[in-house]
Amino acid sequence: MSLLVVGSIALDSLETPFGKKEDVLGGSATYFSTTASFFGPVQLVAVIGEDFPESHLQFLRGRGIDLEGLTREAGRTFRWKGKYGWELNEAQTLDTQLNVFESFSPNLPAAYRETPYVFLGNIHPELQSRVLDQVKAPKLVAADTMNFWIQGSRPALLKTLQRVNLLFINDAEARQLSGEHNVVKAARAILAMGPSRVVIKRGEHGALLFDHDHIFACPAFPLSEVFDPTGAGDTFAGGFMGTLASSGGKVDQQVLRKAMVMGSVMASFTVEKFSLERLREVQRPEIHARFAEFKKLTHFDDLGPLGG
Amino acid sequence: MSLLVVGSIALDSLETPFGKKEDVLGGSATYFSTTASFFGPVQLVAVIGEDFPESHLQFLRGRGIDLEGLTREAGRTFRWKGKYGWELNEAQTLDTQLNVFESFSPNLPAAYRETPYVFLGNIHPELQSRVLDQVKAPKLVAADTMNFWIQGSRPALLKTLQRVNLLFINDAEARQLSGEHNVVKAARAILAMGPSRVVIKRGEHGALLFDHDHIFACPAFPLSEVFDPTGAGDTFAGGFMGTLASSGGKVDQQVLRKAMVMGSVMASFTVEKFSLERLREVQRPEIHARFAEFKKLTHFDDLGPLGG
Repeated sequence: MSLLVVGSIALDSLETPFGKKEDVLGGSATYFSTTASFFGPVQLVAVIGEDFPESHLQFLRGRGIDLEGLTREAGRTFRWKGKYGWELNEAQTLDTQLNVFESFSPNLPAAYRETPYVFLGNIHPELQSRVLDQVKAPKLVAADTMNFWIQGSRPALLKTLQRVNLLFINDAEARQLSGEHNVVKAARAILAMGPSRVVIKRGEHGALLFDHDHIFACPAFPLSEVFDPTGAGDTFAGGFMGTLASSGGKVDQQVLRKAMVMGSVMASFTVEKFSLERLREVQRPEIHARFAEFKKLTHFDDLGPLGG
Repeated sequence: MSLLVVGSIALDSLETPFGKKEDVLGGSATYFSTTASFFGPVQLVAVIGEDFPESHLQFLRGRGIDLEGLTREAGRTFRWKGKYGWELNEAQTLDTQLNVFESFSPNLPAAYRETPYVFLGNIHPELQSRVLDQVKAPKLVAADTMNFWIQGSRPALLKTLQRVNLLFINDAEARQLSGEHNVVKAARAILAMGPSRVVIKRGEHGALLFDHDHIFACPAFPLSEVFDPTGAGDTFAGGFMGTLASSGGKVDQQVLRKAMVMGSVMASFTVEKFSLERLREVQRPEIHARFAEFKKLTHFDDLGPLGG
């Protein structure tokens, strides 16, 4: 079934201990849609400026992503400049130029309004709500958010959350949103805000899926080389939602857990190279092989009898 | 099979956001031996002072722990005073009084020298080596260490590591010991120092087991209340080694992974209350039930076919 994503397309300038890149392809919707396109049809709603390279559009089209909802506006494309230290966990934002993204007002083509799976990327919560006003009867609405909206647009965010089935959020943001330091309490507080499921992302420590009855702990793949963590969270969401959307309409623990692992699998590829370089080259057999590696990484047997 | 532990017995004074306790039972060998005693026979080598309460000895004896190797010396028992902030991850040491522990020189009773499973708690690496001089043909030697020895007694530690089969170490110490920031690289560097297995403990993020061919990722149990993390690492080691020692002599991936999970299970109990309070009351059925909870927490199905 098809999957709709609304978010940013950006040209990123990145600095990591391993090198620098200027104006490379980035943005939440880019990472998400590229990843999700491995699993099924994706519809993209985003905005680019006059300077956005045609080659990037060709790449997205080549991945089979439906670009009817992508608009080109007068002006420059959204730009983000970030820097990572040796810890490679959190980016220090050096510069943000919203450009055409500043007046982004998502308008869904008619064909997108029937889409069953919706991912609201990290944009203003009022814009997220406006997207939901346009979709007819979504089967599952997932959203991402960030500290900027939690702090600056809390009432709008809380309104949006009441219309969201699943929230992706990192651990620091979960604490900020809930006011709870403990991650289990933070998750429960967020579940009381509307979403029936919350995924708490913990970077190199993996991710936790909470609903009212279950917790699932998914590790991150232990990598000896991490080059660029940019887009890891959006890639995780893309692998997760792509797996859900291609699971024949079922949304149960079994499918959700596979989706968690696939999110981790895809994120583990993204961080291996700069920008979307690794996602450009990875093939389905590699993806399936790494999923199987997660099985080996986490499997243990039942306790059975212990001697004394 | 029996399990030997050499380490500290202490009287701890703890301050957490939830309260204060003075002179409660603590020490690496105490947490380790109490935990391991749920699984089989334990032999304890440690030193206490004249002021060590008889009630604590009765408790250890009551757990079936062999105290032949425990000596009482003139002077006061080792005391540690620590404080935890809301993060509840790392203790700030407020005061350390080594007392009788300062001149601790482990001397193994004859009956202990044939013991197949040995755990060298966090003591001076030269003392750890001296213990190994006394054991005859151990099946598996595991050790713990800390930043203090990594920085201050590196040559002695490296010598000891060549005689150790399995090292327990936390992530910060693994980085310090190896000089590698990346946890996979750090583990590989440690494996090159002697141990054929290393367990990297990551507190609330669980633990990783590395050998030359495998990685196993074990989460921590997601707890909504953590009262006192003191002893969590030693409890983990006690559950781990207790499981190994009671597995009929087998030390393979299957057993090691169960041991990892049991380490996490036992540590999750310890942190629920102050000092050893929770370990004093927990019963085998609860332990088995929580092991089963870990299965539910981490289980996911094979990928199977995904639609498109």
